[in-house]
Amino acid sequence: MSDISKASINLHKIHQGKLSTHSLIPLNTREDLALAYTPGVGAVSTFIAENKERAWTHTLKGRTIAVVSDGSAVLGLGNIGPEAALPVMEGKCALFKEFGGIDAIPLCINTQDTEEIITFVKNIAPTFGGINLEDISAPRCFEIEKRLQNLGIPVFHDDQHGTAIVVLAGLINAAKVVQKELSSLKVVINGAGAAGTAIARLILGNSSDERLVKNVVSCDSKGIISRDRNDLNSEKQELVELTQQEKGGSLEDALKGADVFIGVSAAGALSPTLIPSMNPQAIIFALANPTPEIYPDEALNAGAAVVATGRSDYPNQINNVLVFPGIFKGALMSRTSTITFAMKRVAAFNLASLVHNPSPTEIIPDPFNPTVAQTIAQAVCDTQ
Amino acid sequence: MSDISKASINLHKIHQGKLSTHSLIPLNTREDLALAYTPGVGAVSTFIAENKERAWTHTLKGRTIAVVSDGSAVLGLGNIGPEAALPVMEGKCALFKEFGGIDAIPLCINTQDTEEIITFVKNIAPTFGGINLEDISAPRCFEIEKRLQNLGIPVFHDDQHGTAIVVLAGLINAAKVVQKELSSLKVVINGAGAAGTAIARLILGNSSDERLVKNVVSCDSKGIISRDRNDLNSEKQELVELTQQEKGGSLEDALKGADVFIGVSAAGALSPTLIPSMNPQAIIFALANPTPEIYPDEALNAGAAVVATGRSDYPNQINNVLVFPGIFKGALMSRTSTITFAMKRVAAFNLASLVHNPSPTEIIPDPFNPTVAQTIAQAVCDTQ
Repeated sequence: MSDISKASINLHKIHQGKLSTHSLIPLNTREDLALAYTPGVGAVSTFIAENKERAWTHTLKGRTIAVVSDGSAVLGLGNIGPEAALPVMEGKCALFKEFGGIDAIPLCINTQDTEEIITFVKNIAPTFGGINLEDISAPRCFEIEKRLQNLGIPVFHDDQHGTAIVVLAGLINAAKVVQKELSSLKVVINGAGAAGTAIARLILGNSSDERLVKNVVSCDSKGIISRDRNDLNSEKQELVELTQQEKGGSLEDALKGADVFIGVSAAGALSPTLIPSMNPQAIIFALANPTPEIYPDEALNAGAAVVATGRSDYPNQINNVLVFPGIFKGALMSRTSTITFAMKRVAAFNLASLVHNPSPTEIIPDPFNPTVAQTIAQAVCDTQ
Repeated sequence: MSDISKASINLHKIHQGKLSTHSLIPLNTREDLALAYTPGVGAVSTFIAENKERAWTHTLKGRTIAVVSDGSAVLGLGNIGPEAALPVMEGKCALFKEFGGIDAIPLCINTQDTEEIITFVKNIAPTFGGINLEDISAPRCFEIEKRLQNLGIPVFHDDQHGTAIVVLAGLINAAKVVQKELSSLKVVINGAGAAGTAIARLILGNSSDERLVKNVVSCDSKGIISRDRNDLNSEKQELVELTQQEKGGSLEDALKGADVFIGVSAAGALSPTLIPSMNPQAIIFALANPTPEIYPDEALNAGAAVVATGRSDYPNQINNVLVFPGIFKGALMSRTSTITFAMKRVAAFNLASLVHNPSPTEIIPDPFNPTVAQTIAQAVCDTQ
C-alpha cells in the first residue's frame, strides 16, 4: 500500500470521515432554544406551509445539495456498494463547501434498481436545492438523470457533465496552444460510458449549429461506434446519430489523421505507437484513473503536443472539482430547475477563459484558483 | 404574530435555516486534496469494500443520524408537508449536535405512503448510524417503526419514545415529591396517538414483572379505551390488552380516584373542575403544545401538587431534547442495532436521577444541564 493510501486511511480514521455539521444559530439559552426550536420554529413552519417556495429562503434547502450514489461505479473501483462509496461522497461534499461555499450531504443508498433510485430522488427533493448524482454506472445513469429533469430542482450527473465541461474547457485551450481552430478538429473519444457519451454530446450539441468541432468519432472496447454495428444499446445508437459514423473500424483506424484523443476508458488503452498516425501537434487527454491510457512522458516522446490526465501529479489535471461547485452554486443562485445545455457550454468557455495564456502545461485553471467557482456560478446564473 | 414568531422567522431568513456543514480535514493544498479526495480516498473505499463494517469507523456513518419526516404531524400544526417540516427537522439536527455532540441530517420526504417511507429508510441506512423518525402521524408511525427494527441500525420514533422517556422520568420524581410509591399510582393518559401509546407501553412494560404503576387508563377523544368498545383500530386494541380496561366511560369517569393525569391530547382538554375528583396531591402533565390541556396556575389552584407542561415558560418542561441526543449518542457508542425497551427504561431512571432533590417546580433536569446527554448515553451503552 502506498504512503498516500496509508495516510488517507489513517486520516479518515482519526476524524471518523470528514464531513460534519454545525448550528448557525447559538443554542446556549432558553431564549435561543425558543427561537431555533419550539415554540418559535412553529411560526417558521406555518410561514412555509402558506407558501412552500419560502423553504428556499428560510431553510437549508436553498444552499444545500444532495450527493446521491448507489456505489455501482465508484472511481475506477467499480461496483463496491454504498458503504464503500461513502468516503468519496463525503469528500465531494467537503469540496462543495470548501470550493463553492455551499452545503452538501452524502446519501449512499442501498439499491441499484433504476425505479427505486428515481423514487428515492423524488422523495428527497423537498429537502434539497439540487441533486448531484455520482458514481452510478452506465447505462442506468442516463435513464435516471433523464427521468428526473422535471423534478423542479436541478439533477446533474457529475460523472457525465462535470467531466464533459472540464474536458471541453481543456480542449478549447489546447487548440489555442497548437494553433488549430476548434472547429477544424477531428476528435476521437475512447470510452462510451457516462463520461465518454457526455463529452460527445457537449462537443457536438443537438444540431449542426451547435457543433463545436469538425468531427467526433466515439469508440468503445470493440472499436468505432458506427451505423454498421448491430451490438449497440440505445445510448450508443444515439451516439451514432450524433457522430454520424457510417463505417466501423478499430481505435487504430479512428486515430489516423485525428487531432485529439480523449480517453475515458482504461489503463494503457493508448499505445504510443499510434500517436505518429495522428495529425501533427496531437492533443492527448488520458483520463483513466489512477492509471491513464498513456503516461504523459510516453505521449510527449511519441510526438504529442499537449497532454492532460486525471492525476494531480502531472500538469493539466482534468478534475471535476473545477466545475461542480460552481455549477451548483450558480444553479442555487438562479434557482433554476434544470442545468441546461447552454449552461454547460457557458461553464466550459468561462472555465477556459480563466487561463490567460494557455501553454502545453497549462490548459486548465488550478483547482485552488479562488475565482473558478464564482466565475462559473455567475455564468450559469446569467445564462438562465 | 407574536414577537417570538417574528424573531424566529427573521432569524431563519438571516441564516437561511440553521444547519450547515464543514470539512473536518483541511483542503488548502494539492496534498490535502490527494488525502481527502482522489487518489487517496480510493484506498479508503477499497478498505471499506473489504469489510463494510469499517464505514462505522472511517466515515461519518458512525457519528451521524438521519432525522426523517414526512411532514404529516408537525408539532401541533398537523399535516403541513415536508417543506414546512424542514425548520423543525433542521432544528432537531442542530440540537443533536449542540446537546449530544453527534451529527444529524434532516430528510423531509415527499411521500406519506407507509411502504415508500419504509423503502426510503432502508435505502438510506448505509449512510447513517441511526434513524430518528419524526412527526409522522399515527397509526402509520407504529407500523413504519416496527417494520424497520431489523434494519441493522436503530430506528427510533422520537415522538413516541422520546416523549415517553421524559414523561416517565418526570413521573418518577413527581411521585417522590408527593411521597407516593410509583407502584401505587393510578395513571390516566389522555390521548392515544404516538406519544400516548408509547407512554402507556413504557410504564406498563410487556409483562406484570415490568409494570411500574398499579393502573393505567388510556383515553382518546371518545373516552376510556376499553374492551367493550367496537371502534378501536389495532393499536388501540393493543392498548386494551396492555391496560386491561374492561369497561368504558368518560375521561371524567377515568379521573375519579386517579393520582396522575398525563395529557398528550389537545388545548383545554382538562377542566379544572375535574381535579378535585382525583386523589389528593394530584400530578398533572399537560403536554399539548403550545396550549396545554390546562394551564399550571389553574391546575395548582384546583389542588394539583405538581404540574408539568411542554412549555419553556413554566417549570417542569417535558422536552424531548433531554432524551434524543443521549439515546442516539449511546446507541452509536454501543453500535446497537435497536434501542430496546430496557434502554428506554434505563434512560428514564437515569434522567430522573439527575434531579437530586425533586420539588414541585423541579421534577426534571434543565435541558442545559451538561451531564444529561452523557449520562443517558452511558446508561444506554451499559444496557446493551
